[in-house]
Amino acid sequence: MKNKLRLGLIGSGFMGKTHVFGFAAAQRVFELPYDVELACIADVNLPQAEAARSALGFAQATDDWHTMVSDPSIDIIDITAPNALHKEMALAAIAAGKHVYCEKPLAPLAADAREMTEAAERAGIKTQVGFNYLCNPMVVLAKQMIAAGELGDIRGYRGLHAEDYMVDENNPFTFRHDPSGGGALADIGSHALATAEFLLGPITKVMGDCVTMIHSRPDGRGGNKSVTTDDVTRAFVRFGNGATGSIEGNWIATGRKMQHDFEVYGTKGAISFTQERFSELHFYSTSDAKGRQGFRKIEAGPDHAPYGRFCVAPGHQLGFNDLKAIEVAGYIEAIAGLRSEPFNFRAGLRIQTVIETIQRSSREQSWLTVE
Amino acid sequence: MKNKLRLGLIGSGFMGKTHVFGFAAAQRVFELPYDVELACIADVNLPQAEAARSALGFAQATDDWHTMVSDPSIDIIDITAPNALHKEMALAAIAAGKHVYCEKPLAPLAADAREMTEAAERAGIKTQVGFNYLCNPMVVLAKQMIAAGELGDIRGYRGLHAEDYMVDENNPFTFRHDPSGGGALADIGSHALATAEFLLGPITKVMGDCVTMIHSRPDGRGGNKSVTTDDVTRAFVRFGNGATGSIEGNWIATGRKMQHDFEVYGTKGAISFTQERFSELHFYSTSDAKGRQGFRKIEAGPDHAPYGRFCVAPGHQLGFNDLKAIEVAGYIEAIAGLRSEPFNFRAGLRIQTVIETIQRSSREQSWLTVE
Amino acid sequence: MKNKLRLGLIGSGFMGKTHVFGFAAAQRVFELPYDVELACIADVNLPQAEAARSALGFAQATDDWHTMVSDPSIDIIDITAPNALHKEMALAAIAAGKHVYCEKPLAPLAADAREMTEAAERAGIKTQVGFNYLCNPMVVLAKQMIAAGELGDIRGYRGLHAEDYMVDENNPFTFRHDPSGGGALADIGSHALATAEFLLGPITKVMGDCVTMIHSRPDGRGGNKSVTTDDVTRAFVRFGNGATGSIEGNWIATGRKMQHDFEVYGTKGAISFTQERFSELHFYSTSDAKGRQGFRKIEAGPDHAPYGRFCVAPGHQLGFNDLKAIEVAGYIEAIAGLRSEPFNFRAGLRIQTVIETIQRSSREQSWLTVE
Amino acid sequence: MKNKLRLGLIGSGFMGKTHVFGFAAAQRVFELPYDVELACIADVNLPQAEAARSALGFAQATDDWHTMVSDPSIDIIDITAPNALHKEMALAAIAAGKHVYCEKPLAPLAADAREMTEAAERAGIKTQVGFNYLCNPMVVLAKQMIAAGELGDIRGYRGLHAEDYMVDENNPFTFRHDPSGGGALADIGSHALATAEFLLGPITKVMGDCVTMIHSRPDGRGGNKSVTTDDVTRAFVRFGNGATGSIEGNWIATGRKMQHDFEVYGTKGAISFTQERFSELHFYSTSDAKGRQGFRKIEAGPDHAPYGRFCVAPGHQLGFNDLKAIEVAGYIEAIAGLRSEPFNFRAGLRIQTVIETIQRSSREQSWLTVE
Repeated sequence: MKNKLRLGLIGSGFMGKTHVFGFAAAQRVFELPYDVELACIADVNLPQAEAARSALGFAQATDDWHTMVSDPSIDIIDITAPNALHKEMALAAIAAGKHVYCEKPLAPLAADAREMTEAAERAGIKTQVGFNYLCNPMVVLAKQMIAAGELGDIRGYRGLHAEDYMVDENNPFTFRHDPSGGGALADIGSHALATAEFLLGPITKVMGDCVTMIHSRPDGRGGNKSVTTDDVTRAFVRFGNGATGSIEGNWIATGRKMQHDFEVYGTKGAISFTQERFSELHFYSTSDAKGRQGFRKIEAGPDHAPYGRFCVAPGHQLGFNDLKAIEVAGYIEAIAGLRSEPFNFRAGLRIQTVIETIQRSSREQSWLTVE
Repeated sequence: MKNKLRLGLIGSGFMGKTHVFGFAAAQRVFELPYDVELACIADVNLPQAEAARSALGFAQATDDWHTMVSDPSIDIIDITAPNALHKEMALAAIAAGKHVYCEKPLAPLAADAREMTEAAERAGIKTQVGFNYLCNPMVVLAKQMIAAGELGDIRGYRGLHAEDYMVDENNPFTFRHDPSGGGALADIGSHALATAEFLLGPITKVMGDCVTMIHSRPDGRGGNKSVTTDDVTRAFVRFGNGATGSIEGNWIATGRKMQHDFEVYGTKGAISFTQERFSELHFYSTSDAKGRQGFRKIEAGPDHAPYGRFCVAPGHQLGFNDLKAIEVAGYIEAIAGLRSEPFNFRAGLRIQTVIETIQRSSREQSWLTVE
Repeated sequence: MKNKLRLGLIGSGFMGKTHVFGFAAAQRVFELPYDVELACIADVNLPQAEAARSALGFAQATDDWHTMVSDPSIDIIDITAPNALHKEMALAAIAAGKHVYCEKPLAPLAADAREMTEAAERAGIKTQVGFNYLCNPMVVLAKQMIAAGELGDIRGYRGLHAEDYMVDENNPFTFRHDPSGGGALADIGSHALATAEFLLGPITKVMGDCVTMIHSRPDGRGGNKSVTTDDVTRAFVRFGNGATGSIEGNWIATGRKMQHDFEVYGTKGAISFTQERFSELHFYSTSDAKGRQGFRKIEAGPDHAPYGRFCVAPGHQLGFNDLKAIEVAGYIEAIAGLRSEPFNFRAGLRIQTVIETIQRSSREQSWLTVE
Repeated sequence: MKNKLRLGLIGSGFMGKTHVFGFAAAQRVFELPYDVELACIADVNLPQAEAARSALGFAQATDDWHTMVSDPSIDIIDITAPNALHKEMALAAIAAGKHVYCEKPLAPLAADAREMTEAAERAGIKTQVGFNYLCNPMVVLAKQMIAAGELGDIRGYRGLHAEDYMVDENNPFTFRHDPSGGGALADIGSHALATAEFLLGPITKVMGDCVTMIHSRPDGRGGNKSVTTDDVTRAFVRFGNGATGSIEGNWIATGRKMQHDFEVYGTKGAISFTQERFSELHFYSTSDAKGRQGFRKIEAGPDHAPYGRFCVAPGHQLGFNDLKAIEVAGYIEAIAGLRSEPFNFRAGLRIQTVIETIQRSSREQSWLTVE
């Protein structure tokens, strides 16, 4: 009989629900070394915590996350609370010896993320930050193809994450517009950065251009509040492998819902991908016969693990929530020591560091080295 | 506290697993009137039944489905066993007063499907056949747009379901090649028919062309077995609403993994869809301004229920298994009397009837009326 | 110094102009064995003939095509007059020993087309019918790949030509609706048939379904005129090479401007093409590596003759008028005996014969052999 | 009877041929105020000049362009010689009072382009630089839609011109790699800049990143030559209208043949375009109904002038050479005073100025104002 991992979830909003979907699906789809038990859910609002407990199937509910964190029967603390609270919660959980799973971004500031990372590493617990686009089998395939040299030496990269959910200037000011940790680059450009480093390795130098286009938004109390965070950030980047490229994070890209796209150019081939059609990877090989070359639409299937866990036949397609299940499964395997963590606090810190370097580069209008 | 529905599943293969995914996800994603309890799993092979019980979380396992069917504590019998057994199992379950969920096709022959349907209707139990492509919010959107007259009067239809999993003549003979109930039309063309009738209403007349291209396949014992079922079937169709169209079911469509496509032409607009990109619906409206007309790529989002149950933001995409969860949720709501069954035995019988009419039409080389 | 071919053009409407573009471009783009001289243009309306002479650069104009046809200095008669006049004009030109270039369809009825063909063959003159979609380098590439066995044995075919220019029931009755020779199949389905035979060889058997959806149209004099020709025709087809397939001609396909599409399935590969993006050919090969298979978007370039005649670099794209130039160039080379005619009267007769066989099959509701 | 414009062409290579195609097609397709006569062709190699004269239909040939330029019967000098010679030729032609048509880039350096521009303006002659992508009816449509406010206020822009013709490091060093005026930005990034300013108006500030990836190429004499020009240039840009954006010019974009793409984001809509499918413009409007929004594929047709000059029906597609014909027609009309020049020397100077500002910005690693 399998050992149990008892989960304590902080936050009962949409992202909390998504995590529960992920844990539930992961256990059914994969053969995992642990059973995850939904032990406790915490929310500042007790009736809401109770309702979520019942709806999602947790054993207990509480309005005090501290109690839950200090409960010795809990193994993992899963943080889906607002960003500003991540640090305090994570440090407490780490201190109590729990494994910690934290939604992205790890913390508003790299300095905080560093403190969390170092605490986790000292404590020897396992951590995870939720960058689920990287769990897509087709993105993993791209990484494998690059690593195997199927594209030759990589020369160029173009990465985007553009959406339109902030396009309306009448959308109110939220924590996402807060000067400490907010903005399009931190919110979604971070995905473009995570994918870029996942595929090509470390970004070593950056030149950023952070732009605010909507300078004030309703404050929700009849007035307006000034906005200084970026609506779009563009960056030039250098990779450690010698490649050069560009990154864009944009939340006022009218009409775009999920333009998480990349294009990789190597000496022997190229890859083109868009999250709008994320079950496809387009691959160009210079070794195809003359007059027969072209970008090839590879459709996800059982040849691209772990797709086959979800479906025996190709072309049926995974969904966004399936990517979350893959992310969770990797984390549980990492807790059991079967693999390294898919995307741990140090990786989360890394993204925050690149973000802040880009932001500083934009302010200083100069190229900066990413430390 | 919610009432329980206790599930008895027959079959522990891949489709059984998919159903369990569906029940589990449905309960988490939707607010359903019942809790579904995984009561018992039956498989002729007892160790396999036991293994599945443990992996999937059923309370009990058995190698005798009869016992399970007669267990008074079971509420739903879910049949994922081979097609040839559907009838005996369903009739027994109906006789025992259970609700019955049966994978498609309902039965190899329409006569059997009719017997099952009539027994179910006499017994007043709720039934479901698994046609999950119809649960896609974008296909539902297409149906709604057609019903609302956004395309005007419907004149033309083109429907396909083409895959390539039988393209290799060295693939062995299976039950799918059995003259009684096998062939590409019954296996996957049935999806094209179900979608056509879902969107436009009943098909009234057909002219079929069933073609066998691979006339013999390995019998798995070193010899060959003659194949007489269709590898591809094409049909002309007439709809009750006055539209005309064509249907193709094809399992030797080299390179195609999920070409479940349709195109609908009306007097005021058109819709184009491919399952290869099933989170998109392409819509052309003649009321768009001159010089600005074109097929519009609508991406699935919270405006297209029940997408919002899975994700709050557009463009994130559902997967195949999510469609199964929607199918299951509809069935559970139907059991509670909150809606009609999404696709019940009579609907399954209907598809079998159209299939057999097309097959007979091909043999007789003449147009036939669908009864 | 090159010999001259003196051209006499009948018809000064749009298609006449397109032919002149074609002759002019062909001479500049290709190195042709003859110079074509624009000798004379004929139109029943003399002022219009004069205007066209001046605009298009002909030496002479006339309102009597008979004079032109009997002028011994003319080498080619190019007929772009209404279909009903093709036969009389062509027979006169053949009798006068001219080469004859005739727009499609060759004649309203196959019997007429046969008479024209046989007269031309007896006279030994060179003929051409305007099927310019076949001149597209990417369609030629498809044909070459099929012939070279790159797709293996061909099993299946799906061909369309769908447009929407007759979608409005208030569009008046024209010669295209005339029971003798009109209808969507003859007008544009003919292109789908020509492409199918170009790629796979002769169609041997057909089962047709000709449908009229708009039963009356304005007669242009305040009344209405009954329409009995087809708005959409669908057909099942058998090819001499053993493949089976379907064809659709449709002029009420709302939203479609140029859906001249085909998909070819072989034992080793497949090809997918749409005229909407006619500079691309999508090719799937089962010999690509496992996990790397997919439809490959081959873009037209100098590797695909005669693209290089128009542009030295790939991806720049040919246009519709360039295809006409290729058609004309092939004809001029055929006149010089350097190659066979690209699409002569016998080929035009062939298409008329298939059309009429499909139409008769639809009336008789039975499969017919194409003679 | 129309007046004549007598053309003197310098250069008999591929671009010269393309220009002749353009002049010939322009006269047939459009109703132009002048007839263009192919008076004389000049090439340093006399036999080659003679051969081109005969093949292309010029009246005379010469190996001395000075003679041609001073011939009083010549009206237009058309320069398709290597870039380094443009200035001397153009200044001589301007001094002789000829209209001057010059292939892009106008001159290797902005200082030279300025001298040419000022000379032309003082002389009052009409000039043209060949930026034919701007002549595409769909790009013109984009410009019109932006100008008409159909996208609202423009906020963001993403523009590319990426090809792969320099991807192979064994391709020899050519004049395109010459430090004075060479590189990917000048060669093809210039198109991306021209399109950006055509659509949104002047670029006011830039920050550039010019990158050399292939540092040496064969010198054609058995040795290697060092390359210092850019293989890819990326730039951040500010527009005078307040929009911000990015530009990329890249000639080592493996697999890309004609990725001349742009995406424009406004407060009320967006446009997406790729030259790979240049007969389509994708338009998103926030005023479409809720749940029905999406990028709409507008296909070129007679609604988009001057498409109708080439073809009466939509969807037939123009080709690259047709765009050249449109460019030429605009120039001839400008010579007649019927419109302003489509893209004159001052516009060419403008592009050179932006290029050099980007290059200097990259060297100085700082934002620069475009003067």
